[in-house]
Amino acid sequence: MSTIMDKPEITMDVFEKHESKVRSYSRSFPTVFKKAKGYKLWDVNNREYIDFFAGAGALNYGHNHDKMKELLIKYIEEDAITHSLDMATMARGEFLKKFNQVILKPRNLDYKVMFPGPTGTNTVESALKIARKVTGRNTVISFTNGFHGMTIGSLSVTGNASKRGGAGIPLNNSVFMPFDDYVDSGSSLDYIEAFLVNSSSGVDLPAAMILETVQGEGGINAASYEWLQGIEKLCKRFGILLIIDDVQAGCGRTGTFFSFEPAGITPDIVCLSKSIGGYGLPMALTLIKSKYDIWEPGEHNGTFRGNNMAFVTATEALKYWETNNFSQEIAKKSEMMSAFVDFLVHEYPQLHGEKRGRGLMQGVACKNGEMSEQICENAFKRGLLMETSGPEGEVFKFLPPLIIDEEGLEKGFQIVEDSIKAVLDK
Amino acid sequence: MSTIMDKPEITMDVFEKHESKVRSYSRSFPTVFKKAKGYKLWDVNNREYIDFFAGAGALNYGHNHDKMKELLIKYIEEDAITHSLDMATMARGEFLKKFNQVILKPRNLDYKVMFPGPTGTNTVESALKIARKVTGRNTVISFTNGFHGMTIGSLSVTGNASKRGGAGIPLNNSVFMPFDDYVDSGSSLDYIEAFLVNSSSGVDLPAAMILETVQGEGGINAASYEWLQGIEKLCKRFGILLIIDDVQAGCGRTGTFFSFEPAGITPDIVCLSKSIGGYGLPMALTLIKSKYDIWEPGEHNGTFRGNNMAFVTATEALKYWETNNFSQEIAKKSEMMSAFVDFLVHEYPQLHGEKRGRGLMQGVACKNGEMSEQICENAFKRGLLMETSGPEGEVFKFLPPLIIDEEGLEKGFQIVEDSIKAVLDK
Amino acid sequence: MSTIMDKPEITMDVFEKHESKVRSYSRSFPTVFKKAKGYKLWDVNNREYIDFFAGAGALNYGHNHDKMKELLIKYIEEDAITHSLDMATMARGEFLKKFNQVILKPRNLDYKVMFPGPTGTNTVESALKIARKVTGRNTVISFTNGFHGMTIGSLSVTGNASKRGGAGIPLNNSVFMPFDDYVDSGSSLDYIEAFLVNSSSGVDLPAAMILETVQGEGGINAASYEWLQGIEKLCKRFGILLIIDDVQAGCGRTGTFFSFEPAGITPDIVCLSKSIGGYGLPMALTLIKSKYDIWEPGEHNGTFRGNNMAFVTATEALKYWETNNFSQEIAKKSEMMSAFVDFLVHEYPQLHGEKRGRGLMQGVACKNGEMSEQICENAFKRGLLMETSGPEGEVFKFLPPLIIDEEGLEKGFQIVEDSIKAVLDK
Amino acid sequence: MSTIMDKPEITMDVFEKHESKVRSYSRSFPTVFKKAKGYKLWDVNNREYIDFFAGAGALNYGHNHDKMKELLIKYIEEDAITHSLDMATMARGEFLKKFNQVILKPRNLDYKVMFPGPTGTNTVESALKIARKVTGRNTVISFTNGFHGMTIGSLSVTGNASKRGGAGIPLNNSVFMPFDDYVDSGSSLDYIEAFLVNSSSGVDLPAAMILETVQGEGGINAASYEWLQGIEKLCKRFGILLIIDDVQAGCGRTGTFFSFEPAGITPDIVCLSKSIGGYGLPMALTLIKSKYDIWEPGEHNGTFRGNNMAFVTATEALKYWETNNFSQEIAKKSEMMSAFVDFLVHEYPQLHGEKRGRGLMQGVACKNGEMSEQICENAFKRGLLMETSGPEGEVFKFLPPLIIDEEGLEKGFQIVEDSIKAVLDK
Repeated sequence: MSTIMDKPEITMDVFEKHESKVRSYSRSFPTVFKKAKGYKLWDVNNREYIDFFAGAGALNYGHNHDKMKELLIKYIEEDAITHSLDMATMARGEFLKKFNQVILKPRNLDYKVMFPGPTGTNTVESALKIARKVTGRNTVISFTNGFHGMTIGSLSVTGNASKRGGAGIPLNNSVFMPFDDYVDSGSSLDYIEAFLVNSSSGVDLPAAMILETVQGEGGINAASYEWLQGIEKLCKRFGILLIIDDVQAGCGRTGTFFSFEPAGITPDIVCLSKSIGGYGLPMALTLIKSKYDIWEPGEHNGTFRGNNMAFVTATEALKYWETNNFSQEIAKKSEMMSAFVDFLVHEYPQLHGEKRGRGLMQGVACKNGEMSEQICENAFKRGLLMETSGPEGEVFKFLPPLIIDEEGLEKGFQIVEDSIKAVLDK
Repeated sequence: MSTIMDKPEITMDVFEKHESKVRSYSRSFPTVFKKAKGYKLWDVNNREYIDFFAGAGALNYGHNHDKMKELLIKYIEEDAITHSLDMATMARGEFLKKFNQVILKPRNLDYKVMFPGPTGTNTVESALKIARKVTGRNTVISFTNGFHGMTIGSLSVTGNASKRGGAGIPLNNSVFMPFDDYVDSGSSLDYIEAFLVNSSSGVDLPAAMILETVQGEGGINAASYEWLQGIEKLCKRFGILLIIDDVQAGCGRTGTFFSFEPAGITPDIVCLSKSIGGYGLPMALTLIKSKYDIWEPGEHNGTFRGNNMAFVTATEALKYWETNNFSQEIAKKSEMMSAFVDFLVHEYPQLHGEKRGRGLMQGVACKNGEMSEQICENAFKRGLLMETSGPEGEVFKFLPPLIIDEEGLEKGFQIVEDSIKAVLDK
Repeated sequence: MSTIMDKPEITMDVFEKHESKVRSYSRSFPTVFKKAKGYKLWDVNNREYIDFFAGAGALNYGHNHDKMKELLIKYIEEDAITHSLDMATMARGEFLKKFNQVILKPRNLDYKVMFPGPTGTNTVESALKIARKVTGRNTVISFTNGFHGMTIGSLSVTGNASKRGGAGIPLNNSVFMPFDDYVDSGSSLDYIEAFLVNSSSGVDLPAAMILETVQGEGGINAASYEWLQGIEKLCKRFGILLIIDDVQAGCGRTGTFFSFEPAGITPDIVCLSKSIGGYGLPMALTLIKSKYDIWEPGEHNGTFRGNNMAFVTATEALKYWETNNFSQEIAKKSEMMSAFVDFLVHEYPQLHGEKRGRGLMQGVACKNGEMSEQICENAFKRGLLMETSGPEGEVFKFLPPLIIDEEGLEKGFQIVEDSIKAVLDK
Repeated sequence: MSTIMDKPEITMDVFEKHESKVRSYSRSFPTVFKKAKGYKLWDVNNREYIDFFAGAGALNYGHNHDKMKELLIKYIEEDAITHSLDMATMARGEFLKKFNQVILKPRNLDYKVMFPGPTGTNTVESALKIARKVTGRNTVISFTNGFHGMTIGSLSVTGNASKRGGAGIPLNNSVFMPFDDYVDSGSSLDYIEAFLVNSSSGVDLPAAMILETVQGEGGINAASYEWLQGIEKLCKRFGILLIIDDVQAGCGRTGTFFSFEPAGITPDIVCLSKSIGGYGLPMALTLIKSKYDIWEPGEHNGTFRGNNMAFVTATEALKYWETNNFSQEIAKKSEMMSAFVDFLVHEYPQLHGEKRGRGLMQGVACKNGEMSEQICENAFKRGLLMETSGPEGEVFKFLPPLIIDEEGLEKGFQIVEDSIKAVLDK
């Protein structure tokens, strides 16, 4: 039978002609992709690309992981159930058991698992809802440069002005506070406390605070563990629920399964998506402390809560977390990345570079968005996928699959450096 | 290798123990499902179920469709790209071409295709955004008993009080108008016109009207073609964009690809999801008239806009629409269903039955929600999946896969009748 | 000493030069006024005007009422306290006693009196607040063509598009329902009930309904007593508070002190302002059923809640209500007005006239706003103050002081008829 | 004829029985007042009170000012027009001319004068509206501890939690920033700049900033001139309108007619009320830079925009500002007050006193609200009206009429000191 691989080639004009102007990545990476494996992709011209983008964090385990692939095909071949809303299925049950056994139990986490619909914005929306329901309050505190999704609830706690502008209505019931280190003169924690402690501050006692420990879209800003602890303390003191949006920074991206583990904090609600499915299939979870799981049946729902194919690969992916080995590997590669970032900042002063990030989620804030975008464009031409981050796109961002090997990292770094040179030489 | 089919059985207590209280269908259908094919499912005890539920409309082509399955496995086996955000890929391009060729072109529809994230609520949110952006207005008119999704934007145009209550914040920027036949005394169109024509009515000129031609969750209320034409006329007269949410009623459910075709109207924006993916995989589209496609690149985005597996099966599913045969088959089966509904209403006066719906989306509004739920429960015990609809769940609803054969329909009808008898005899 | 009467004349250019473009009545009545008495005003040229406008309803007892004037001067002369916020004062106490004795007690009304700040919009804002506080709900039902004030809370329940547009933000937490007779085909009460009875209508159970029994700005639409009774019944059935905004229609304007008396209903909250002060001085009251008076001290406040001069004249004005005489006089004059309106409608078919209103608050809806405005302009030139009402200003409106005598009425009517003739002849 | 002075005494139970629980000052000052003159009041028992409260700032020229009284009586006696909405009248014209001549022209201020309804909250609502209209933006930046009024628009920019709670709906379209010196670590201006400069801060570019130069209700916090200049600079840089709410701090309260004069800034919009009427009669103004006066006629309106009695006394009050004498007198008395505050802070360490304020608007923040309220209660018993301020009522506040003489001030100070002693001794 004829397959995608045999088809006459699709060209870029198909997308220009038929697809809405809203499309974005087909502009940054203007080629038609065909195949992918591990940390590599190939386009229709069989050109190879190293992946420092990883599906914006959805491909921590790489493209088309062999073991997951095998299980997935088997599952499909056997006509095991594919679509099931939130009915009970074998695949869903296996995932729940494994998630409890490998992730929750060893960390002493008493969370109920909610399947909120298979996207990041859906887990965020469900988290905001349950926090408001539990507390009976409206306001949610969010943070500068935070990014949580494109539906109105999530967008209300997202900082980016152009995304916000897309709403077409005022975005309300949220208050933005400075993220860690946001203002040079003065402490974010002091600032937030001053608003909470004073009943005339104009900031109503919030239902929740929502934050990313490392801001993936907002500039790879990593919160210090002290700051995270301070936030948790404030939340406890004022009876505010703490929501960690671990959609991009979770699933091992910063070295531990949950990004907040090294900070020693325990959020009341955790949002997971992107890499939780393992293979890049749509899936999301909302973890809710048992005592706050006061949902009515069906109070939040959605058609694709039962993406069983994703449950199959997600369950397999959890095996990475049965021992510490994976974390240790990530740590090792993170050090390589960190050294490379340091090198760039010092070696190329014209970058006006500033180191950003943590784990395998690092980047360099450079002079301006133009420079950073040129570097990414240049890298693409040299065979590397990499995107910018930050309010002005001023950060170029390294987000390879976590399973990348040292060779892959080094190849990627070389392309980055070559691209920087090319851009700075112009 | 061990597969789901060999695994020790998962039991219901796994879900009770680990999953959030929000779970719903595992309560209505309390068994663990394992396998599915066409219009049938099997649970872990190998009990067979006839499917009059079809993934709430996501499985119009049935479970695990053979041809799609074959292509899907092939696609996976070849390591074709799985996750790609909105990058250009072969699978995405093939889908765009086919969708244009089979659906848009023959119907003279000048829509741009937007991939808004793979869920129904995501297409609705994107539709509301672009309508507000195009018009520069805030308000959206929605309709009584309308259901559009669970994220804050979509929930604001959804009528159901318990779902709305889940928001925890007032839902604003929307106005609810009476759906066709909603009020006995007086015409819905007259009411809406009276509000629009008068600049002191308190209803601000809206950006859009959003509606389902047959309300899937709100009681299987089918709008007459005259009413739909009247709505289109009002929209044109007042410069309001018309959004048809065809997430449940589209993809052939009422006999034509788009549910609005027989009404002869052309919406400005169309929302598709559920069965558009063909195989039950998460996917959604927003169709926008070219002249209104004024999005900035990336103004609405999302991680799972590039679910290539869904594109593969979606492209195959479109083949059903290359000729009129499929529509004719649906029409034939719809007549059978219609006759059965008539029969029930007349044969069982204790139902206080009222016929609802159109195509293969019909149901019986009965005395109250309790009766209707008992009938569904009873049917489940007899091996039929069927759910209720309507504000009080007072409608039992037939939503089989469109590919069901006459035998399947008749078997299902028999179980329904047996269940009704059993409930009424109590 | 020099007085206003001796001053060199002020000319219109003072206002054009120094005052904001927002000014309105100095455009409709382009002259500088100096003196006023009863139902007459004089401008700086000593031109006399008959007043069919009565300060938009604030001068029910006429200009500069002799007895009130005397008491007011006495009060000022004695250095009795002028400004007192909501401190206890003799004048405030006298008013409270009198209001209870003459108004509340004889009507068996168990209201607490709130002084919310001395304007109509302030009483409406306080009414909405307490209704939301009592019920814990957000939404307030308002009615087409309703007008309740210019501050954001009141504006949210006001229908007029151009006033609403002035807000600069979406106006939320309100739902507009059709006023009595708003739609020809169909009953407003049936319509409202259909929204309230259905939990999926999208209209959240409201805190309150707010309405004027005769819509002063929205077109002099008088609700039938049956409709008002129906509204009260719906409110009781669904636990919704009924707020009557009697700011313009109250204080005798339609013949009884409260406009709703003949309907036999008892609102939960009543808003009074305009003529409650008697002499045209700023004053407002919010009447709240005792059981709903759950305010915290100072939860609503304002600097001018203690306008003692207004209390003095207001107390005197209440004497009009000690017997039925005043009501009977109003009724008699209302009949004259009614006959005149009938006469106009029949005599001048080119008006396309429609009779509107009740009591001494009547008018003629004519062909369009242009015609109606020309009639008012023409009347002004002939020495009569009269304004338009309705969404397009299509109603010319008779709102003389209630104390006008028959001669005054007839003079006024003559000018109106002359003006109509002049306009129609053009 | 019988007057208030002869009436049988009103007792406090009249208010308890008939008035809503919302009443507040009749609780703080539990006696019935009868007469007032200059800086003194008398109750029905002829007990004399020194006024350190001044109608919450509405009586800068004292009670029942002789010259204004004379003019007012004359005006009334002559049947000059009392109520006129915003029609042109002699009294309104005289005021406009005088205000331009004495206030605007000498200060080179190019403001149009809007009469927005006679209360503070009304001027604030109109200011917010025009700022949103001019800029086409929704958000308004307000400040911690700011107080602007009780109607929904003004309340949205007011910090006090209990007042905000009274709204019964979420208060939106506003963002609260730290007032000068609000956070110890870090500069308010740096914070605000950091939010404005970053397009991903989550704070949408605002229409306006609104602030009081000295926060009257929020704790008598005086902004430094440097901070005010910094705010103006930020506003100019980002195209944000600057609104100064001078309702309490204006009309000479801090020594100059406008409180912002010594800072050398020129707001785009100024809100005036309270003392602008001179005699304590309801009146308010909104001053709008000519270029921003883009109102449509009647876009904001209100029944009591034409309180001619207030115009008469307001015009007379402006005479105080024809020379510098009044400012100099205020300065002298302010120094006395300042010295007294210093004395208290140092002499009574148990107060944990902190000096607050500027001009004749000063106070002492003490240990807690309880202490401060006890001091005010004690002072009342000793014959002094004084109220608390601040989020917890922790500030006792000196706000005498500006025309108080030194003897009056000293008598008042003595009572304050005696009260402190009495409270601290307990």
